[in-house]
Amino acid sequence: MRGHSGDAMGRPVQQAAERVLVRHLGARVGSASQLSVTMAAISELAMSTLVARGIPLLEARVIVLTVERFTVGHVLEEQAPRPDAEALKDFDMAAFAERHPTAVAAIAEYFGPGRTVDDLFRDCLEVVIAGAAVKAGAAS
Amino acid sequence: MRGHSGDAMGRPVQQAAERVLVRHLGARVGSASQLSVTMAAISELAMSTLVARGIPLLEARVIVLTVERFTVGHVLEEQAPRPDAEALKDFDMAAFAERHPTAVAAIAEYFGPGRTVDDLFRDCLEVVIAGAAVKAGAAS
Repeated sequence: MRGHSGDAMGRPVQQAAERVLVRHLGARVGSASQLSVTMAAISELAMSTLVARGIPLLEARVIVLTVERFTVGHVLEEQAPRPDAEALKDFDMAAFAERHPTAVAAIAEYFGPGRTVDDLFRDCLEVVIAGAAVKAGAAS
Repeated sequence: MRGHSGDAMGRPVQQAAERVLVRHLGARVGSASQLSVTMAAISELAMSTLVARGIPLLEARVIVLTVERFTVGHVLEEQAPRPDAEALKDFDMAAFAERHPTAVAAIAEYFGPGRTVDDLFRDCLEVVIAGAAVKAGAAS
């Protein structure tokens, strides 16, 4: 799933996304970014970069928002407090695994070779960037 | 940006994403879904559907998580409380627009024809689904 985002279109999007990630690392974030000057500057840079490369404004906005919202969702999910002992007390892992065999097998397979949640972020971001490249190619 | 996700691969992903959206509408959500039985069931359904269509488990997991995390980020952003009068008191819209011309123009252009945030969700989801189709095609 890696190594396919080095194209000219993907790089600014990925850089913007990684800046968002770096900014949020280590700090629990709310998601109300409407008045965030940093987020606005990132959006402006990303959208204007795409527009400068010939991508129509509407598509540029949709692409940038997709990356930003995926990033916010990913960071919030990873930063969410893990279940405490009280919450786990009645949790039946065996029954859960039996009801969700694909999801549980996928977690084991994914993290088995030493991948971390940062790898997961990048792998998922590759999906978004691949889609952005399709949309940008169709629109420009 | 619309009308391209009716393919066999995209539909289950879109349905899963829309179920997540519908589930969260009208309720402020936290993002800690590790123990959420509903989220686990959605993930299992989406991943097993993709695997049944020949997409390798690892790619299926990455695709489904991308959709889920984008959806969580989108919903949280849209549900975030809007800035109150106090926060807006010192906000200089003209200066903001001058510093972020592309982002501000993009908002005006996007919402001008009567689009809503639900259209924005679907347009962004199209980006993710287009990328998922690329990744699934490359992997299967």
